[in-house]
Parts: sequence; structure tokens; C-alpha cells
Amino acid sequence: MSKLSVPAPNAKNRVRRKPQRASYDLEAIDAILDAGWVVHVGFCIEGQPFVIPTTYVRIGRELFLHGAAASRMLRSAGTAIPLCLTVTLLDGLVFARSAMHHSMNYRSVVIFGQAELVSAFDEKRRILEALVDRFSPQRSKHTRSPSEKELAATSVLRVAIVEASAKVRTGGPLEDGADLALPYWSGVIPLALRAKAPEPAADNPAGVPHPSLDVVYAL
Amino acid sequence: MSKLSVPAPNAKNRVRRKPQRASYDLEAIDAILDAGWVVHVGFCIEGQPFVIPTTYVRIGRELFLHGAAASRMLRSAGTAIPLCLTVTLLDGLVFARSAMHHSMNYRSVVIFGQAELVSAFDEKRRILEALVDRFSPQRSKHTRSPSEKELAATSVLRVAIVEASAKVRTGGPLEDGADLALPYWSGVIPLALRAKAPEPAADNPAGVPHPSLDVVYAL
Repeated sequence: MSKLSVPAPNAKNRVRRKPQRASYDLEAIDAILDAGWVVHVGFCIEGQPFVIPTTYVRIGRELFLHGAAASRMLRSAGTAIPLCLTVTLLDGLVFARSAMHHSMNYRSVVIFGQAELVSAFDEKRRILEALVDRFSPQRSKHTRSPSEKELAATSVLRVAIVEASAKVRTGGPLEDGADLALPYWSGVIPLALRAKAPEPAADNPAGVPHPSLDVVYAL
Repeated sequence: MSKLSVPAPNAKNRVRRKPQRASYDLEAIDAILDAGWVVHVGFCIEGQPFVIPTTYVRIGRELFLHGAAASRMLRSAGTAIPLCLTVTLLDGLVFARSAMHHSMNYRSVVIFGQAELVSAFDEKRRILEALVDRFSPQRSKHTRSPSEKELAATSVLRVAIVEASAKVRTGGPLEDGADLALPYWSGVIPLALRAKAPEPAADNPAGVPHPSLDVVYAL
């Protein structure tokens, strides 16, 4: 049985460079999106590209962005102009015997689409809860919920995950046979985003433990 | 004495959203670029944005990208179309008593510019050495240098760091006074990219130690 995947790639989302690293498989795409924290949102205004980092949450086949209603990115992206959303995770430095074959291990997803404003308050609330729950499981239940005024001041954007692709490099260096005799270290230094010791605010209520870090250590 | 900075920001690189987080100071911009590994390169083709992750090296007031001469990004970016290059480092999850004031600590740089192909072999070699030396100090001296054929097959692009800005958030949550009595954890979970145990290739020469990880731990 074949796995679920996005529709057949088109001229835009087909990975051209090193296509052997590409995947159009939904599970692969979702796993990368769920492991990342920052999406780089690209849009064009009169031929000028803008690439703005922001956070996001995936729910089903949609990716959600948010921000103060005034931000330039959301103002522009809310008008249904074409977007490109890219999430990249750096997994390692790949050392080869030749300078040429040094590389990086990574996982990335690129989504092409258009954003749509989410306006219903109950839906906005549900999405903002999901955003906060990414910080720590159930966090939205251990925090004050947004007021109606806060909901009104926050734009939420929806982008369908349809024209999408994943690209992944794993493993050690690919070396030229003639280089294998050279006495240089060859292998991978794996990298991962890790939590450091929690820093409670000076006015943090006494005896309240910090949230679970599982979500971070699991990356 | 005022610090060195990029020229006065214009309509493009002036940070509009939360301008109190912005900096046009060269030292701040350089420190972020030198700590990052991945730049998201944005460009437009007929109104369609593309955002492609790649690595880079900063030398002086220029940022250098590279890649196989055939890649779509470099083919497009080599024709002097406007680019937006964004480097983002995630430094922490900020937990507040209210959902609304959850935030992230980060450092980012946005550069607007146009790319220029570097064609002189000696200059390409110097830039590729600098790219490899980012992996580990002096690594370029402990690896086989690129051949003329490899240099010819590799495009190197230069982008001036002039229309640039940095944006930084640090510190704990900014909470509404009325929320301070709520019994929820408030503070920061700092995050950092860290090296894990080196993984030598199966055919790594015996007795050759792995490169210094200083460059990674220093992030």
C-alpha cells in the first residue's frame, strides 16, 4: 500500500537539485514541520522578496501563522499573494576528506500556497491554544486564555499543506574513491537544538515547577 | 563615539514591527551571521516567491553562498535579481502567565541585496576555504583542496551586507500587571544548538581524532 502523499509535484514544488533527497510523503513532511519551531515566510512585493521568520503550528493538513494584526508580513500575506514557507532543521556537520564533499545533514520542508485569514473567534482560540501547547504539552490549560480583545488584536493565517515537498540529507560523507587514502577525519558531528536549565522569572510564583521539557528534548 | 553601522535604514530594511528590537549596528549583525549556519534565501520569479535554505560564510562586509553551478537558486540568484537573505537563531521559549504573552527569544538578520558571481579561481578557493573553516578552525588545511575541475563546477555568490538589519529578543516574559497573581510558571527555557557525540565514518582512518567542536559549543 502506498503511503499518503501530497498531489503529484508540479513545476514549483518538484525538487530539482538532488532529487534523490526529496520526498512528497505526508508523514515525512509532517514530522519535519512538527519538529521545527521557526518557518521562514517568503513573499514578493513588486518583485522585491521578503523573508520573515515566525513560529507556527501544524494542525492536520494546514499550517497556521499568527502575529499582531499590524505586522507587515501578515498585512501582505493576508491578501492572498503567493507565499513560500520553508522550515529547516540542521542535523549535523558532515566532514569529508576533501573540502568539496563537506556537507550538512538537514531536514527541510517547502510549502507553496496562499494564506487565508482565520476570523472566527472560536477557531482562532483553538489555533492559539495549539500554538501554546507546542511549548509544552497542555500548557494552554495552565495559562490565562486570550480575552476577546486579545483575540481581535491577533491575526491568524491558514496555509494549506498541498504544494509541498520535504528534502532530507542524512548519513556520512560521500567521498571520491581516490580520497579514501587521505589521513583526514571523516564523519559527522551531529547537531541538535537542546534545552538548557530553565530560567524562572524573578516574580515567578513560589513552588510552581517549570513546564515539561519533553517537547524540546524530543527534537 | 558611535558604533559602526549600516547606512541609515530605508523603506525596505527598516524594521517596522517592534522596532525596539531592531539594530543596524555592524557588530550586532556580524555576531548573528557568524553564529548561524543556515541562511534562507528568498527570490521572486514572476511574482512567485522561493525560499531556499543554504549555508554561507561572512567575510568582512560580504556574505558568500555557494552550490553546484546547476542549482535553480544560484541560476536565478546569479542574474542580479533582488534577494532577501534571512538568518534566524532560536534562543528560547518564553512562558508567560497569559497565553498571549508567550514568546520566543531569537536573534535574526535580514539582508536585502543582489548577488554577484565570483569567477576568479583564487578568490573562489579562498571563499570555499573560509566555508570549510567554519566547520572547525583550520579544517581547510586538514582536507584535500578543491581541484580546478571542482572549482569550475561550484558557483560562488557574493552579497554585500549593506541594506541589513538585526532583530533580537532576549529576557523573560512581558506580562500584564493583572496577570501577575496567576499561579502559572513564568520564565524562559533557553535553547541552543549543540553538538552530540561525533560519528566517525566506517572507513575513517584509524587514530585520526575528530575536529575540534569549539565552533559548535561556542554558539
